[in-house]
Amino acid sequence: MNPDPDYSAAYLVVHTDADDGLSGHGFVFTIGRGNDIQQVAIDVAASHIVGRDVEELLADMGATSRLLLHDSQLRWLGPEKGVMHMAIGAVINALWDLKAKRAGMPLWQLLSRMSPEEIVDLVDFRYLSDALTREEALEILRAAEPGRADREQQLLAEGYPAYTTTPGWLGYSDEKLTRLCKEARDDGFTQIKLKVGADLEDDIRRFRKAREVLGPDFPIAIDANQRWGVADAIEWVNALAEFNPHWVEEPTSPDEVLGHAAIARGIAPIPVATGEHVQNRIVFKQMMQAEALEYVQIDATRVGGANEIIAILLLAAKFGLKVCPHAGGVGLCEAVQHFSMFDFVAVTGTKEGRVIEFVDHLHEHFVTPTVIEGGSYQTPTAPGAGTEMLEASVREYAFQEEAAR
Amino acid sequence: MNPDPDYSAAYLVVHTDADDGLSGHGFVFTIGRGNDIQQVAIDVAASHIVGRDVEELLADMGATSRLLLHDSQLRWLGPEKGVMHMAIGAVINALWDLKAKRAGMPLWQLLSRMSPEEIVDLVDFRYLSDALTREEALEILRAAEPGRADREQQLLAEGYPAYTTTPGWLGYSDEKLTRLCKEARDDGFTQIKLKVGADLEDDIRRFRKAREVLGPDFPIAIDANQRWGVADAIEWVNALAEFNPHWVEEPTSPDEVLGHAAIARGIAPIPVATGEHVQNRIVFKQMMQAEALEYVQIDATRVGGANEIIAILLLAAKFGLKVCPHAGGVGLCEAVQHFSMFDFVAVTGTKEGRVIEFVDHLHEHFVTPTVIEGGSYQTPTAPGAGTEMLEASVREYAFQEEAAR
Repeated sequence: MNPDPDYSAAYLVVHTDADDGLSGHGFVFTIGRGNDIQQVAIDVAASHIVGRDVEELLADMGATSRLLLHDSQLRWLGPEKGVMHMAIGAVINALWDLKAKRAGMPLWQLLSRMSPEEIVDLVDFRYLSDALTREEALEILRAAEPGRADREQQLLAEGYPAYTTTPGWLGYSDEKLTRLCKEARDDGFTQIKLKVGADLEDDIRRFRKAREVLGPDFPIAIDANQRWGVADAIEWVNALAEFNPHWVEEPTSPDEVLGHAAIARGIAPIPVATGEHVQNRIVFKQMMQAEALEYVQIDATRVGGANEIIAILLLAAKFGLKVCPHAGGVGLCEAVQHFSMFDFVAVTGTKEGRVIEFVDHLHEHFVTPTVIEGGSYQTPTAPGAGTEMLEASVREYAFQEEAAR
Repeated sequence: MNPDPDYSAAYLVVHTDADDGLSGHGFVFTIGRGNDIQQVAIDVAASHIVGRDVEELLADMGATSRLLLHDSQLRWLGPEKGVMHMAIGAVINALWDLKAKRAGMPLWQLLSRMSPEEIVDLVDFRYLSDALTREEALEILRAAEPGRADREQQLLAEGYPAYTTTPGWLGYSDEKLTRLCKEARDDGFTQIKLKVGADLEDDIRRFRKAREVLGPDFPIAIDANQRWGVADAIEWVNALAEFNPHWVEEPTSPDEVLGHAAIARGIAPIPVATGEHVQNRIVFKQMMQAEALEYVQIDATRVGGANEIIAILLLAAKFGLKVCPHAGGVGLCEAVQHFSMFDFVAVTGTKEGRVIEFVDHLHEHFVTPTVIEGGSYQTPTAPGAGTEMLEASVREYAFQEEAAR
């Protein structure tokens, strides 16, 4: 489905006139063409905060989020989906990066130390309350309050488990697949993922190879990147069932609430995972209501910023589903880890059955790159949201037309 | 929900090197800020057709549509939703305008004279086939083939019924509401619509006024513009049930497949209408599968162009639902009428219970403005898709920054 990605990002820096030298960084990950559209959309969204009092904006991030999301003229371009929504998310995330730096904490810790009331104030419950009310969200957060400090220490000591997609790309030779599966296990990863859906015979052979290396019980997920319709998905996945897929990711269109539900019923007990392209909390909510997914794959730059991601974490907690973020791309690992860590400390209180995706590339362009040890994300301690790129990288890789200005 | 619209359009003209003097015109309607984002997105989408052989592009509009929609890098920005999708729709619609002009026919007629096979070749059945297969679509079109010529004559003689939203905007005095209701009926309109959802007491008073003028049986629809969550929608609409609403439009988020279905059950037998913000055929399909709506409100510039609108018409025909387009804005009446007319001639063969929205403004900027007589759209006979603006209007109203280039 994505034959020629050209990993890119529309990038935003929020400067202030404070003398603390701090700036807020946010971005939207894209795969090439259209990055310029995303950049224009970010500029338009950012016009809401340029010239405003930064203390006021950061003090009430719920209100700031609504300021951008409830601009009715921009809302017309979605509402709450696609280019405009991702742009607003980048602006909100840049402000969270700044807020965390000013607080001297990594974002996961800043969020984890907010009171339940402060956290629910970040969430827009419009269109959510048939599944999750503010009161229910408060109860979830209050139930997790007692163990926060202990879990913070545990997180700093242990990190958070990762899984790797590195062995599983389509087009690798069987030899390379075998070698990379071994390396993944040796590196301490406790799960891998195989891309599937181009050719069934090929998928069967590759899955068999992976099982030969990793044994019958090692979690191996499969990822179809939206290739199938409902009937095809059920047939294809059932043909791979003997290899015990840990989950089936993006079996069909991310807009398919009913389709994912039908697939989930048709391939049970194999669980469905989706989310990297799910446009907002409203679609996630419906997938949960319809029992369409088991693994909730939040993405750091797809929805309307940290506030909406928190809404999705709370929904997943309400429905008892596992959040296993999508990552890779440019900076997605750096950004998304904070939300799983916040979830562990202050929302669900557990890492059981949860993993964060890891793809080992492009980390070198970030000021605080992801650190993986023994198959786990090492918990970041540097202040901020992880979203700041190195100035040298931004200069060197700026898109030519941009650079020429 | 849309307190301060500044009616706008991102506008596109496709020129060719043919000596026929014909050009193709397309646009995306917006309500102000963000129009510039939409324009950049159109430029990027249009880069796929610039320099290409126009005969080839126009000869296979199914393939041309896929060329744009299956650009995986642009697809990442949706997929198939929001800014990028609407931009692609504008490019596709501009090509249809050109194709119709070259054929010397209005778009409705060009489409109505294509064979069933040619029509289904326009449709992307990906993610549709659990509800509508290519074969089923062919059957629908073949069943309507025999009466096409008669219905074309009937359409040219009778036009297509319209309804008007003019009396029903929030903020009008009761006196103005009363006067405009009378005028609407006197002008021959057979349905009106009231905006609701700001204040229940106010809605009750206004609805009562309208009923006093128009009597108990005159169809009066109500439109909430996405204001409510599920529970609020059910409660509010049931409080207005005594006034016999013809339909309830946009009771909640356009992303709400399950929410619309719950509302439909909760307010039955009052029917649900939605669609002006429904992002693509995949969401329409699910709403139909979930029995979430009765009236399918296609919009001329929200989805991926004429091809996707045809997919939605075919879905509606399969599910036995009535297509009643959204219009108003800038040029939406001019553009969308062609699809209802095509539906009558070549898809469902009926106008029974169908109406096209009409709002009486901004028509003076179009080369072939909508003509309403006796409450009906008069069937356009000029070649094209109705999407061409007057050069003088484009010049006069071009956004300042654009004009300054």
